[in-house]
Amino acid sequence: MASSFGERLRVSVFGESHGNGIGAVIDGLPAGFPIDFDRLMQFMERRQGGRNALSTSRKEPDVPRFISGVTDGRTNGFPLCLEIANTNTRSGDYSEMLRKPRPSHADYTADVKWHGQADMRGGGHFSGRLTAPLCAAGGIALQMLKAEGILIGAHLWNVGDVFDDPFPMQPNERLFEQIAQKPFPVIDDAKGEAMMQEILSAREAQDSVGGSIECMIDGLRAGIGDPMFDGVENQLARALFGIPAVKGVEFGEGFALSQMRGSQANDPFYAVDDVPGLVLTKTNHNGGILGGITNGMPVRFRVGIKPTPSIAQPQETVERVGAHMENSVIEIKGRHDPCIAQRAVPVVEAVAALVTLDLVLTESASAFSF
Amino acid sequence: MASSFGERLRVSVFGESHGNGIGAVIDGLPAGFPIDFDRLMQFMERRQGGRNALSTSRKEPDVPRFISGVTDGRTNGFPLCLEIANTNTRSGDYSEMLRKPRPSHADYTADVKWHGQADMRGGGHFSGRLTAPLCAAGGIALQMLKAEGILIGAHLWNVGDVFDDPFPMQPNERLFEQIAQKPFPVIDDAKGEAMMQEILSAREAQDSVGGSIECMIDGLRAGIGDPMFDGVENQLARALFGIPAVKGVEFGEGFALSQMRGSQANDPFYAVDDVPGLVLTKTNHNGGILGGITNGMPVRFRVGIKPTPSIAQPQETVERVGAHMENSVIEIKGRHDPCIAQRAVPVVEAVAALVTLDLVLTESASAFSF
Amino acid sequence: MASSFGERLRVSVFGESHGNGIGAVIDGLPAGFPIDFDRLMQFMERRQGGRNALSTSRKEPDVPRFISGVTDGRTNGFPLCLEIANTNTRSGDYSEMLRKPRPSHADYTADVKWHGQADMRGGGHFSGRLTAPLCAAGGIALQMLKAEGILIGAHLWNVGDVFDDPFPMQPNERLFEQIAQKPFPVIDDAKGEAMMQEILSAREAQDSVGGSIECMIDGLRAGIGDPMFDGVENQLARALFGIPAVKGVEFGEGFALSQMRGSQANDPFYAVDDVPGLVLTKTNHNGGILGGITNGMPVRFRVGIKPTPSIAQPQETVERVGAHMENSVIEIKGRHDPCIAQRAVPVVEAVAALVTLDLVLTESASAFSF
Amino acid sequence: MASSFGERLRVSVFGESHGNGIGAVIDGLPAGFPIDFDRLMQFMERRQGGRNALSTSRKEPDVPRFISGVTDGRTNGFPLCLEIANTNTRSGDYSEMLRKPRPSHADYTADVKWHGQADMRGGGHFSGRLTAPLCAAGGIALQMLKAEGILIGAHLWNVGDVFDDPFPMQPNERLFEQIAQKPFPVIDDAKGEAMMQEILSAREAQDSVGGSIECMIDGLRAGIGDPMFDGVENQLARALFGIPAVKGVEFGEGFALSQMRGSQANDPFYAVDDVPGLVLTKTNHNGGILGGITNGMPVRFRVGIKPTPSIAQPQETVERVGAHMENSVIEIKGRHDPCIAQRAVPVVEAVAALVTLDLVLTESASAFSF
Repeated sequence: MASSFGERLRVSVFGESHGNGIGAVIDGLPAGFPIDFDRLMQFMERRQGGRNALSTSRKEPDVPRFISGVTDGRTNGFPLCLEIANTNTRSGDYSEMLRKPRPSHADYTADVKWHGQADMRGGGHFSGRLTAPLCAAGGIALQMLKAEGILIGAHLWNVGDVFDDPFPMQPNERLFEQIAQKPFPVIDDAKGEAMMQEILSAREAQDSVGGSIECMIDGLRAGIGDPMFDGVENQLARALFGIPAVKGVEFGEGFALSQMRGSQANDPFYAVDDVPGLVLTKTNHNGGILGGITNGMPVRFRVGIKPTPSIAQPQETVERVGAHMENSVIEIKGRHDPCIAQRAVPVVEAVAALVTLDLVLTESASAFSF
Repeated sequence: MASSFGERLRVSVFGESHGNGIGAVIDGLPAGFPIDFDRLMQFMERRQGGRNALSTSRKEPDVPRFISGVTDGRTNGFPLCLEIANTNTRSGDYSEMLRKPRPSHADYTADVKWHGQADMRGGGHFSGRLTAPLCAAGGIALQMLKAEGILIGAHLWNVGDVFDDPFPMQPNERLFEQIAQKPFPVIDDAKGEAMMQEILSAREAQDSVGGSIECMIDGLRAGIGDPMFDGVENQLARALFGIPAVKGVEFGEGFALSQMRGSQANDPFYAVDDVPGLVLTKTNHNGGILGGITNGMPVRFRVGIKPTPSIAQPQETVERVGAHMENSVIEIKGRHDPCIAQRAVPVVEAVAALVTLDLVLTESASAFSF
Repeated sequence: MASSFGERLRVSVFGESHGNGIGAVIDGLPAGFPIDFDRLMQFMERRQGGRNALSTSRKEPDVPRFISGVTDGRTNGFPLCLEIANTNTRSGDYSEMLRKPRPSHADYTADVKWHGQADMRGGGHFSGRLTAPLCAAGGIALQMLKAEGILIGAHLWNVGDVFDDPFPMQPNERLFEQIAQKPFPVIDDAKGEAMMQEILSAREAQDSVGGSIECMIDGLRAGIGDPMFDGVENQLARALFGIPAVKGVEFGEGFALSQMRGSQANDPFYAVDDVPGLVLTKTNHNGGILGGITNGMPVRFRVGIKPTPSIAQPQETVERVGAHMENSVIEIKGRHDPCIAQRAVPVVEAVAALVTLDLVLTESASAFSF
Repeated sequence: MASSFGERLRVSVFGESHGNGIGAVIDGLPAGFPIDFDRLMQFMERRQGGRNALSTSRKEPDVPRFISGVTDGRTNGFPLCLEIANTNTRSGDYSEMLRKPRPSHADYTADVKWHGQADMRGGGHFSGRLTAPLCAAGGIALQMLKAEGILIGAHLWNVGDVFDDPFPMQPNERLFEQIAQKPFPVIDDAKGEAMMQEILSAREAQDSVGGSIECMIDGLRAGIGDPMFDGVENQLARALFGIPAVKGVEFGEGFALSQMRGSQANDPFYAVDDVPGLVLTKTNHNGGILGGITNGMPVRFRVGIKPTPSIAQPQETVERVGAHMENSVIEIKGRHDPCIAQRAVPVVEAVAALVTLDLVLTESASAFSF
């Protein structure tokens, strides 16, 4: 169903922005893994508001409470349910928008789909807050994958017209950790500074700005994924489009390949001298995936994120008046990030980790024994 | 499993390039629909080789034989199985590549995954030929959708650096049909001429070139799709990445949104004067989807396709010699399209139609009665 | 994955007997339904311990807390997560069995599957306690179905050798409610008295006894269900075997049909005089299902439940001593129902309701608007 | 969707009794397995008509043609599609029943579900003929399992009131093969003789008779299967109810457990002297499954099959006259087995093999390398 994904590892997300709580159930986690809770909290803090001057001031602790699936700090093989309480909601800010759908939000489509019965305060189940349980689930998956030598990292690829440096062809753990520890997740801090200026400039104009994220999965052996509709690309794309505001997913050079020649785009194979049998490619324009199946190079993809739809400027919209709709104007109050892309960086890592762990478990349900 | 997708309408594709046949099973088609076989053949011919000077000369009739699911020309409610015979295979052309993986093809990853047991002659199950049964299945879905007022059309968005005009915000049936009847599927024929030059130039250089496709689904009411991981975007993306050589999928303005401001990107709602209750948006940067759910505007997306990996130039690769791999060079002989994007246009329409029909049937299994 | 089922209505169960809590996520519930919480609690109390002299004395209030999916007492269209706290656990009672698997319990198989890492105190995720969230979820489904004219009822069919009267061919709401209100859920109270004697007699012998349950779903129109592997029988059976201790499921006359002749077993059709177009059958040996699809008669099935595996008598088992297993004896202490069948009656109703609601929603996702 | 099942091994069945052909797609088969076609044909012949005096005289060769998935006699890792042609149909025999639904057949329910558009000649997609592709698919699975030491066998447990001997607690390959080679699949031939008399007696009375089948899966290690709704019982039951005429499924002692005491029903564990670490049970009332997970004992289950609905006696039914239904009488002509249970024996083995192979592959997708 809608709010879940995965085959052997199934993640189910629940909650609304202004309900009692939000959370996730993760079914299929290997048993016996000791969760590093401090590390998990550090990971979750990366997506949280208030980390730097650019984020909304809404700050909730977002500490997951484990209802099931964990015994004495270890996964116990049964479905793990975690809840994050909703404590800092200001419903008053959202009263107008329940009558007037905010442009480019899900308010209108949810209203139509659920005949006005959906609880859309604060965006309801579509709120960016729902990425918190995704990060809690993905943070655990990241730890498990790391124990198996599989690393995942991401950075802001662009904000508006400002682009970061690309990942090197073979990234390393130190690079991933450095980015993760920065208050602004880029490779080149000067580019990061320029991005922040772009965001501040948008905020001053009562506006917002989009961005995109580059992510890499390193350490997957060749041969993972299934052909046609269950390939690595298919599964990652299906899950990544579940992150709010994602409007594009591309692998390797992605859309740029449509402007390239085959002689440029093809990745030549070569035999690695020191490791008998090991074959790699000299370039990685295909993002580590051929025919939906990993080729042993790092999996590399980008995710395009639209500008925060909530902006303070007056916008044209409609208003329900009795049984019919009238043209109207909305001014969205409340606290809103002028750019969500920066906070989506760990969310992309989290979703990539959950899909990757599922792929590995699908190959071998008993691969992991801790 | 790997070679199938869909929930209420389930499509399962089978076959290898050089096996006995290829085909598909479509389970969940509404009963009683009179298939227009002439129209279906016309649709299938659009993807076939030899339609213009740019395609490979391999020409098979690709006439689907219906094994089940059709009685007296109408769908009978039971799984429809169709087979397309393989008649025109020249296995000799492919002998070298069974030892040497072709760069950017699935040869190497399939070899690793199936321990050398996969039948990769002609690309095996990964061959572009497998899009023929997808088109047969999708061609039927297109006819059913049209009977319900839902239209789907696509055109080449770019080949290399040459771009076509975009679809208008509200396309119409005539435009879709015009494009479908052209030997080269573009809106602006002058741009099409330039694209063909680009392709011919690549072929002369023993090279290939990539391209991308813009597609629209018109006529879907607001409220279709599910939140988070089962939205329209998630389901389309998952299926579209099943088309060989697709490396990117974006909705509405897609990645361009990452360079836009919210005030530009947001689509203002307005009440349509003449139709009480009808709400549309003044622009359609979100591609007709908000929160994964249709908003009543046409669904619009683009698909990026890499250059044909098979090029005649010598390329570096590896060669299996006994138990180990040695560096080597491959020259790919045989007939290969210098650009697959042009032939992928109807394939994108077909996959979009199958996903759309599934979405509609999921809303109401008995929506269609013919 | 393992602990969930359903297509359009997806139920996911989590928790362990001695963890923090147990619960369920129900994704796909129609929006706007006003849950009658008093009625829900009454339903849940039917499965709870301590209702009559025959049950274990462990009494937890089992009040579900709604974390998500409910706003102002109504379903809001988003995944409903409910939690039931674990408050009355006595882990001390279970120490021996963590070393010695209890015969006919899941202790041994869970130990093998999860390499000793599963939290099997009190039966872990296999505990009968996990039927509490199933009843909470199913209780909501029952209310929704009732609003649509679909009623579900069940009674104890037998305990040991004592059999109740069968359901009449056309049951009614009053009969279902009468049984639901009895402390012992049978049609004929004299038979119920004899069953209770059977249970008490088992308990006195430090033993337990099995039983079976007959269930009916009334009000489903003809034509629901899919052929072959997604029929009503397939889906009900798959879910019903998820109830702990269920070892058999049969529809209509079930296994008795294997001893019947066709002339006895076939259900003759007849046209109902007063209702043009309505066709029913004179008997219902097929349990309202032909070819996996409802025929408009009540759906009728039986579920066989084994005796409570936990008995106070000494039993042969093995004991892990260091790296190897030695023969041993176990005496199971603690409170255990001598017959779980009686408490499973509402659980069968709950699971039947969840499957039925899924079937109805699969036919038409928007069938329900409250 | 309806006509498919399985997770890692997905089987999709297509075809109608009187269409062009019937067949199956099996996606997920391990690559490199050399199919023994003679053995496969022998297996398929076991379900075919005309094997002894008791079966319908309709004899089609039922030789599967492999369209895909097999190269040089070996599985090639891609979806295997097989077709069996329909050659021996006599549509004339079925004309009356297209107006008058046959009691206890799917004629009426299919007519309602597909609004009269389903092709129900000969039972359409519900025909027993559809078990032929199931047997072809399952026959391949049986061969693969055997190569891994997993054996599956079945016999007629009863026909009417005549019961065969039960399987011994630990069956062996020779017993399975002996039964498979008999014209009438029982353990005790004297009992078989009595069953045949029962069937002949039913035929003479223009009637039919039901039966049931006992099946065993031997060689599965402990720890296979998932808890709650994806256990071995859940998955087998879901698939087995897809066999036409199956109305009950029970594991181990099944419904008889509802009449037993715990002290009788529980299976005591013991440590096997000669094999360190090996634990078995002294009895196997639970059918090798505890908590949905295998315990290392043979999996044992029974399937109840109703009498052939097609009988020559006049039966009451309805007849569509214009827009309404009138009471009527039907006399079913044509050739019909007076007992389908005997021919269902290999079908039960086939379905059990497909589910078992899926279970094993779900544990480890790369378990098999041939």
